[in-house]
Amino acid sequence: MRLIDARTGIEVMDRAECLELLGTTDIGRIAVVDAGHPVIFPVNYAMDGEHIVFRTAPGTKFDATVRGTPVAFEIDWTDPGSRAAWSVVVTGWARVVETPEELARAEALELQPWSEHDKPHFVAVHPERVSGRRIVPADAASG
Amino acid sequence: MRLIDARTGIEVMDRAECLELLGTTDIGRIAVVDAGHPVIFPVNYAMDGEHIVFRTAPGTKFDATVRGTPVAFEIDWTDPGSRAAWSVVVTGWARVVETPEELARAEALELQPWSEHDKPHFVAVHPERVSGRRIVPADAASG
Repeated sequence: MRLIDARTGIEVMDRAECLELLGTTDIGRIAVVDAGHPVIFPVNYAMDGEHIVFRTAPGTKFDATVRGTPVAFEIDWTDPGSRAAWSVVVTGWARVVETPEELARAEALELQPWSEHDKPHFVAVHPERVSGRRIVPADAASG
Repeated sequence: MRLIDARTGIEVMDRAECLELLGTTDIGRIAVVDAGHPVIFPVNYAMDGEHIVFRTAPGTKFDATVRGTPVAFEIDWTDPGSRAAWSVVVTGWARVVETPEELARAEALELQPWSEHDKPHFVAVHPERVSGRRIVPADAASG
């Protein structure tokens, strides 16, 4: 069942649809809290089941900030032509991947950093809360 | 002068270039802190000089959370084909636009919400810190 608010044209997506969309892209943004202030980092990610996995470089602020902390993660898509759009926001806790089994799966994800920067750590986020919205252009919704 | 780290292929952009890129797109992500946890919202924005301006709807969590708080704002662009990419991250404080002069400028920004949702408040963020990185694909960088 699609839940569309006729007034706003916003469709609320369920968890299953959000997780499906998380598997269709590979660039997202991680937000963390650093000394009470929000910080955002774009990341190249891949899914390991329902877990969002990305790489970090030891010694960087991102690596230090993201470990064991509450994070928010966002992906979105927009089509300027039709003004169709969707976004998915996930909240959860970030943890460093350490078990051999999970490390092996992370290595197999083909999670190549876009830069040549060495990023040997894998961080995983289990989506505790998942929400998604899709904007259906008024023309498409009514037509 | 372009600052490129030959090892990582990452170019650090200066403030002027970041501000120029902020003027080329209209979708970004705002991160705020809510009860100690990070939250991300995608927003449709426009620039009023160096100020990032977007609309909020009264009574929403976003409207309540963003007022007078430290925020981070991010835009990015990627080209999957060449693996070229850039991102700009801004930190600053969000405030509701209230002076008649600034409200008139905000109204003139043609800042149409993508959804039909009524969002009468304008919020402005002055970029206190601006940072940007550009990834130059290894092939392109080496010529």
